[in-house]
Amino acid sequence: MKALQYTAFGEEPTVVDIPRPSPGPGQVLLRVTAAGVCHSDLHIMASPPEEYRYGPLPLTLGHEAAGVVVSSGPGADRFPADTPVLVYGPWGCGICRSCARGEENYCTDPAGVHPPGISVAGAMAEYMLVDAERHLVPLRDLDPVQAVALTDAGLTSYHAINGSRHRLGAGTYALVIGAGGLGHIAIQILRALGASTVIAADVSEEKLRLAREVGAHHCVIANEAAADEIGRLTAGAGVDAIFDFVGTERTVGLAGSVAATHGDIVIVGVGNGALPVGYRRQPFETSVRSTFWGSRSDLWEVVDLARAGLIRVAVETHPLLDAPTAYKRLAEGKVFGRAVIVP
Amino acid sequence: MKALQYTAFGEEPTVVDIPRPSPGPGQVLLRVTAAGVCHSDLHIMASPPEEYRYGPLPLTLGHEAAGVVVSSGPGADRFPADTPVLVYGPWGCGICRSCARGEENYCTDPAGVHPPGISVAGAMAEYMLVDAERHLVPLRDLDPVQAVALTDAGLTSYHAINGSRHRLGAGTYALVIGAGGLGHIAIQILRALGASTVIAADVSEEKLRLAREVGAHHCVIANEAAADEIGRLTAGAGVDAIFDFVGTERTVGLAGSVAATHGDIVIVGVGNGALPVGYRRQPFETSVRSTFWGSRSDLWEVVDLARAGLIRVAVETHPLLDAPTAYKRLAEGKVFGRAVIVP
Amino acid sequence: MKALQYTAFGEEPTVVDIPRPSPGPGQVLLRVTAAGVCHSDLHIMASPPEEYRYGPLPLTLGHEAAGVVVSSGPGADRFPADTPVLVYGPWGCGICRSCARGEENYCTDPAGVHPPGISVAGAMAEYMLVDAERHLVPLRDLDPVQAVALTDAGLTSYHAINGSRHRLGAGTYALVIGAGGLGHIAIQILRALGASTVIAADVSEEKLRLAREVGAHHCVIANEAAADEIGRLTAGAGVDAIFDFVGTERTVGLAGSVAATHGDIVIVGVGNGALPVGYRRQPFETSVRSTFWGSRSDLWEVVDLARAGLIRVAVETHPLLDAPTAYKRLAEGKVFGRAVIVP
Amino acid sequence: MKALQYTAFGEEPTVVDIPRPSPGPGQVLLRVTAAGVCHSDLHIMASPPEEYRYGPLPLTLGHEAAGVVVSSGPGADRFPADTPVLVYGPWGCGICRSCARGEENYCTDPAGVHPPGISVAGAMAEYMLVDAERHLVPLRDLDPVQAVALTDAGLTSYHAINGSRHRLGAGTYALVIGAGGLGHIAIQILRALGASTVIAADVSEEKLRLAREVGAHHCVIANEAAADEIGRLTAGAGVDAIFDFVGTERTVGLAGSVAATHGDIVIVGVGNGALPVGYRRQPFETSVRSTFWGSRSDLWEVVDLARAGLIRVAVETHPLLDAPTAYKRLAEGKVFGRAVIVP
Repeated sequence: MKALQYTAFGEEPTVVDIPRPSPGPGQVLLRVTAAGVCHSDLHIMASPPEEYRYGPLPLTLGHEAAGVVVSSGPGADRFPADTPVLVYGPWGCGICRSCARGEENYCTDPAGVHPPGISVAGAMAEYMLVDAERHLVPLRDLDPVQAVALTDAGLTSYHAINGSRHRLGAGTYALVIGAGGLGHIAIQILRALGASTVIAADVSEEKLRLAREVGAHHCVIANEAAADEIGRLTAGAGVDAIFDFVGTERTVGLAGSVAATHGDIVIVGVGNGALPVGYRRQPFETSVRSTFWGSRSDLWEVVDLARAGLIRVAVETHPLLDAPTAYKRLAEGKVFGRAVIVP
Repeated sequence: MKALQYTAFGEEPTVVDIPRPSPGPGQVLLRVTAAGVCHSDLHIMASPPEEYRYGPLPLTLGHEAAGVVVSSGPGADRFPADTPVLVYGPWGCGICRSCARGEENYCTDPAGVHPPGISVAGAMAEYMLVDAERHLVPLRDLDPVQAVALTDAGLTSYHAINGSRHRLGAGTYALVIGAGGLGHIAIQILRALGASTVIAADVSEEKLRLAREVGAHHCVIANEAAADEIGRLTAGAGVDAIFDFVGTERTVGLAGSVAATHGDIVIVGVGNGALPVGYRRQPFETSVRSTFWGSRSDLWEVVDLARAGLIRVAVETHPLLDAPTAYKRLAEGKVFGRAVIVP
Repeated sequence: MKALQYTAFGEEPTVVDIPRPSPGPGQVLLRVTAAGVCHSDLHIMASPPEEYRYGPLPLTLGHEAAGVVVSSGPGADRFPADTPVLVYGPWGCGICRSCARGEENYCTDPAGVHPPGISVAGAMAEYMLVDAERHLVPLRDLDPVQAVALTDAGLTSYHAINGSRHRLGAGTYALVIGAGGLGHIAIQILRALGASTVIAADVSEEKLRLAREVGAHHCVIANEAAADEIGRLTAGAGVDAIFDFVGTERTVGLAGSVAATHGDIVIVGVGNGALPVGYRRQPFETSVRSTFWGSRSDLWEVVDLARAGLIRVAVETHPLLDAPTAYKRLAEGKVFGRAVIVP
Repeated sequence: MKALQYTAFGEEPTVVDIPRPSPGPGQVLLRVTAAGVCHSDLHIMASPPEEYRYGPLPLTLGHEAAGVVVSSGPGADRFPADTPVLVYGPWGCGICRSCARGEENYCTDPAGVHPPGISVAGAMAEYMLVDAERHLVPLRDLDPVQAVALTDAGLTSYHAINGSRHRLGAGTYALVIGAGGLGHIAIQILRALGASTVIAADVSEEKLRLAREVGAHHCVIANEAAADEIGRLTAGAGVDAIFDFVGTERTVGLAGSVAATHGDIVIVGVGNGALPVGYRRQPFETSVRSTFWGSRSDLWEVVDLARAGLIRVAVETHPLLDAPTAYKRLAEGKVFGRAVIVP
């Protein structure tokens, strides 16, 4: 079968021919119907050999996956052939105290989380193996191309926001920094889950246009004047829930400067910034945390939001052979919403 | 000044002339700009003498009040003259453990809650006394006629719903039983605060029309087939949050028969029904409670929702002299939304 | 191997010889080190044929299980041979939205929950099969005889209490009705998790003695005077969290008559009582719910409590051949704490 | 009457004679029975004139107050003469959205919080004025000398911990950094409210001895080896709730280095340290916040804990004339627990 692989350090990803896998005990083989293209893949391929802590090369990319069941190994019988599914990505041990509540993204097993496309073979291929049935969520009537980004862009946004739902009540303000693949979904989740006035900030006017289309009440260019403008929009009260999908020194600084008393600042982006938190540095009770992907039930819930018509993912599609182009466009900041590979 | 009073047991309320009061220490005198007409007033006037536990007759009615500050007594200086305000109604002692967190509706002082229009002189008059500044919320740019119902119909609905906000997440269903003065606001609060699919049930097709206008996704005639239809609408999963603004044997029975595992049933209406709760009588974790009015911060929050444009109260207005007519229309079920007296 | 089976309707359970099972894909074979004797087993055996909805006869009893791993089927490799474990009992599908957060006790799969000893072969045997590794929790240094009751008596109590932890704060009262196998553990969990003054009520003075030993601050004989005495103990404020492990008409009535505003009443016992809940029937915000067993993470947590020395289960032990005696003693109300079979 | 005042910048506080005040409308006059000596007073007196933002000099010190009611002004009639009371210190406007839920410590009025002993005349005197009855909590049978520290040392600790109660469940670890006036109460609150294993860290072995006496399970000298030792005590899992009552660069660094996934770090101490929070800088979901004093209901609750015998404050007492000595001992780190002035 065809697969897009990262074959050697510093090389571009390429489409290769590899044998189609077959499912062992407990495993499920899917025919891939959609695979999402994510910034994290660029991070993997930009990682120097000495810092590389991902799966062995060649690595089939793709941690956002939708597919239909082809066959199941011994002991796996819950999903009949031809069932359309989404794949929960942060595969944990399934057993530890974190996994016992479905938080496999924070699996405490020493072996750690091992997602497809990152630690083992992923979804950028005609077929993929899923390690266990519990990592599948029924897609039912959702379009796989529309829905595939729910598994990471959607799940990560949902998890970050859901952890701050108590901050989205009456008379509150929410701020989304970075209106890209995750941010444009986050805006819709905020509109669905709470009563906040939603502000989007981005350096790109085009991305702010998308932000407005998907429901942001206010859009702010993320320059030096942003903090003042946000202060004005909140009438000086500050922002109650801030989701930073960029995570640079500059964006976490913006977050810190506009937060309200009791505000939540959630750092999702891997931009390596850090916000110094201390007594009288931020308003009292402003809490700052970082977050990673989401839990199994979070995925069920974000899929429910999409099924209720509350999330629409902006997608551009590419055939598998064209996947390298999709990564180039992403690296150049040209993708609005999410690029999806349709094998 | 003119005031609408309940003067003697069994009599109709009448407009009388009484002296205009003046504020003592800590008190505030308002010129009333709007006063809401509520079913509770009918209950008060229907109470037989031996069960009557309200203020001494004659009693100036009206526990939903908006006004502008005329003058303040010694020690009250926070609200300058001419400030437009809403009045928080369930006046408590202000000091006990409940009042200390703003839950004056559950004041534990032996003297109990003493609301205007119920225990002491109320808002159906040209002027009214407010016992303490803490019972005022700034109205700012809101229209008093539109906003006055927020103080009870809005506050009671908001309080009931806010206590079940954790049930309004992704993929959930909410049911409002009774689409009247409270119910039609509750539907809007549900739409604002969560992601639930909102179902309204009422015996009146006209009230269901209002329900749909203000945002209900589905409307169900509250007859014998209602439980089945709601079951079908929720695909058998049941309803996650149920707000019964009627509270009769029949409506609490409907609530009990359609609740989901982990569902909340909140009985707000005074219809005297009771739902037998026990092991395997309802789905597990379905919790049932009753509720009364709301807290001081709840009022700030429901006002914030209105200011954000998320609540529109359907009102019909009457001059003070015409207040008896408003009560008649209410008793006959002819009021859609809320009747408001404009002195 | 030897196993205690319920062989035919109306018969006493008997020890029989059956073949030792072997693990299929994903399954784990345990050598049983302890199996708890539970009232539910008496219910199963008392169920008339037309109402019987448990596993096919003969049925090996025992839904509280501790053991050591003997061998694992294909695809199961997380628990090496000789690992001591506890067995999570309410086996669900592992996949649905409830199971995705570890709440297999509320599995939404149409096939429902199928616990060992209730729906399939259980722990009252020398060996038992566990359907999936995710149903095992490492026992580490805990004594299996002491710990086995954590899997139901402990887990059910913990789950009930943990859902009401917000009611166990400063200045609160908690009431445990029924100081038996579950109740005597519940008292300890309440002492561990919150600041409540703990009151125990039971009809048996001997069980109240056990209650006091394990930490109850006050003990009340559950007779007609109980409500008054509890009212006096709480200085009239009422009880904030009530756990009824009996669940008869009389005990739920007691619960309803002593609850505080904002109180939680949790019905755990299967005594078939029902409490009529309605407006002004209980204090406002008193919520009433029933509950069943617990989630996977609940089991990890209650085991953590035991490991921290905060739970001590009162046990009497019997060899497998003597298991019928244990059931007789239980039926006669002679067991204090929990009876445990040690095969 | 005698009062301890800070009279001029750079001067030692001195006992002076001033007129006894009388209560205006809404105010209450107390005879002071106990006044706590707090580090914050040293901060006030160490503040250079250009940064000084406290009450005008001379300033009667003392923001921890217990007393008995002498008389009340017009409109204040809830507390009869001779009622023993504690004084809630962070006086807010009583009206704004924060104050409406009793969070006067986060009053949003532009005039800000104005506590006695900090912004207006305080408790280090024979008599003091309280601005409003709502700032009084009945002391009932508690000893004022024992209880006075509940109003700040207790309230601040309680508020910090209560905001993280969800982190104090089964199998968790809590860390108290700084076992002084606040820390030694915090340890007791942690023991009362949750199931955490409590670790205390301090530079002083004597203070750790106090920590152990009041309930800390483990005590750790706060040196370079502290993080390793705490890691060992938590078996590598990290600490779930950390309360830093020192707040220096070093202590917040220690907090950051030992936090668990989902851990809470609460910075209470004014030591001016800051912890850089960012993606992969701490475990995921570790949240960091600062906090200030507490709400009105928090004070009721911490008093309830003391009344239940769950908090014992270590105190040393001084007569009013000897108050300057108490401040000297505090500045020299010689006070264990809390110094209390008894006028």
